[in-house]
Amino acid sequence: MKIIVDAMGGDHAPSEVVLGAAKAASELEIDVVLVGNEEKIKSCLGGQASRIEIVNAQEVISNDEPPVAAVRTKKNASIPMGLRLLKEGYGDAMVSAGSTGALMAGGLFTLGRFEGIERPAIATVFPTKKRPALLLDIGANSECKPKNLVQFALMGSIYCKEIMGVEQPRVGLLNIGVEEEKGNSLVKTTYVMLKELKNINFCGNVEPRDFFDGNFDVVVCDGFTGNIFLKTVEGLAAFLLGQLKDEIKSSIKYSLGALLIKPVFNAVKSRLDYSEYGGAMLLGLDGILVKCHGSSDRKAIFNGIKVAKKFVESDILSEIKEAIKETEGQVG
Amino acid sequence: MKIIVDAMGGDHAPSEVVLGAAKAASELEIDVVLVGNEEKIKSCLGGQASRIEIVNAQEVISNDEPPVAAVRTKKNASIPMGLRLLKEGYGDAMVSAGSTGALMAGGLFTLGRFEGIERPAIATVFPTKKRPALLLDIGANSECKPKNLVQFALMGSIYCKEIMGVEQPRVGLLNIGVEEEKGNSLVKTTYVMLKELKNINFCGNVEPRDFFDGNFDVVVCDGFTGNIFLKTVEGLAAFLLGQLKDEIKSSIKYSLGALLIKPVFNAVKSRLDYSEYGGAMLLGLDGILVKCHGSSDRKAIFNGIKVAKKFVESDILSEIKEAIKETEGQVG
Repeated sequence: MKIIVDAMGGDHAPSEVVLGAAKAASELEIDVVLVGNEEKIKSCLGGQASRIEIVNAQEVISNDEPPVAAVRTKKNASIPMGLRLLKEGYGDAMVSAGSTGALMAGGLFTLGRFEGIERPAIATVFPTKKRPALLLDIGANSECKPKNLVQFALMGSIYCKEIMGVEQPRVGLLNIGVEEEKGNSLVKTTYVMLKELKNINFCGNVEPRDFFDGNFDVVVCDGFTGNIFLKTVEGLAAFLLGQLKDEIKSSIKYSLGALLIKPVFNAVKSRLDYSEYGGAMLLGLDGILVKCHGSSDRKAIFNGIKVAKKFVESDILSEIKEAIKETEGQVG
Repeated sequence: MKIIVDAMGGDHAPSEVVLGAAKAASELEIDVVLVGNEEKIKSCLGGQASRIEIVNAQEVISNDEPPVAAVRTKKNASIPMGLRLLKEGYGDAMVSAGSTGALMAGGLFTLGRFEGIERPAIATVFPTKKRPALLLDIGANSECKPKNLVQFALMGSIYCKEIMGVEQPRVGLLNIGVEEEKGNSLVKTTYVMLKELKNINFCGNVEPRDFFDGNFDVVVCDGFTGNIFLKTVEGLAAFLLGQLKDEIKSSIKYSLGALLIKPVFNAVKSRLDYSEYGGAMLLGLDGILVKCHGSSDRKAIFNGIKVAKKFVESDILSEIKEAIKETEGQVG
């Protein structure tokens, strides 16, 4: 198996990416293709280079660039080059900690959509009181049709089963009430369609305030709503922790107490970072693309490559293809 | 001035409501009409009853009842009776800590919409790093047109100026990106219309993660999105505080630390309660309706009546009427 790795993506690229990829190459019994600035990659690698190949890419796409324009103009950046290698079958999957937008835009442009999928989605995992839950779409599609959400439910459900190891994932629809008749016309129509679907375990509407109870494994929504949810979580978490910090500073007694429970704050904060920058899966593209979080260190890159390997070994794509075909018959 | 108070609404009704209303009657130079179970109200009042009148209502609408059905079938409950008194001009405003849904449904049914307003909205205040910000609509309208959002911006802006005392409130549009071209078709069209409006201080898109920075005073969105935001805030806050509590329990050192900074947690939590159950304004109905939070104690009820008084004394309704008229010319 050969995994293509974008050596230039992420806050700690190329060094941490290269070191994580090198570890994966030596421990996971896979070959790695590092795409990026050859000179820099070589200097990061030092001596160790078994099962590693370098493909030189002159340019880099940053997180600040408008994704569509970036992948069109910077054809020699690591993301578009990696995607072309993937498309040509030079590797089995691609891993990147670079711009999600560029990966999605470039993915659509170079790989195209997976057979039968109308809209690919971005999925990410959030912590809950129980096991983590997968939410999709978190921002690829600002406007969705009910059929898109049904496909998100199918893809998310299969991903959750195969990669997260959940038998019969409980699928929910993000909504403003639990009753079937609640919400806007998109979710109302989607509800009826999901209820009819035989190949997923649909468990009804889930309100954002119950999301964190962990009674759902896969939650679907349109990309506008999902992105609002994601960014509200980010914003409120930062606000709350900031408020706690400010209050603590106001007295010596508080500062002492805070010192004692510092590990508690750090533990909860790291669980949150998980949700804030917890990486994302691009589901529905015709190729396997794993997005590591932007702040990935070598361990996170190693884990991303491990997920990609699991994805390649799994039967996800053919399962999705079959599920989509069955669904066409069910929901038209 | 005469304020109608729903004596039966809220978790601590009737006692806390009655005591808050009695305080308002004696301190704010207003008359109060308490609507609810006469016997219970009298027993709560004890001796003190100056400037207070009781209107007996036999039924109560709870928070769990479907609002529309409840206001139609329970015509003698305190909410519908209070609204009828308001409609008949027996009082200048109504204050309730009861079901928001029943107040909105009953309000539409009994009072109707304010001249020129297509859709009334529910507005609530959230804490930020700076001063509190008003968000609307947080759930009255699951489906909105751009024109509705423009009217929300006008009403919110006038309310923020008159009641919250902010000169030139900075108005924002809740979106998934700050750039004009971001979002779904609703927000894209709304953006263009808000930009053209001369009678508000439109400052662009605001992402939920920046909401809490406090750089906007009034933020508008459709009721589905606003309700998702509200419930994500509620859910995440409960989840985070729960996680902190669980971690703290795991060691004696942590428990000691937590004991020292308990007032910090309480301070931040109470600031949050503010946002979770922080009361709401029903804007756009043809009458003044102040919704206190469900967990209101006598002080919160007193403050709610104070807001209602300020609302009556202000020129909000005629300002809104004028703004709507001007806008018709501008945005068609």
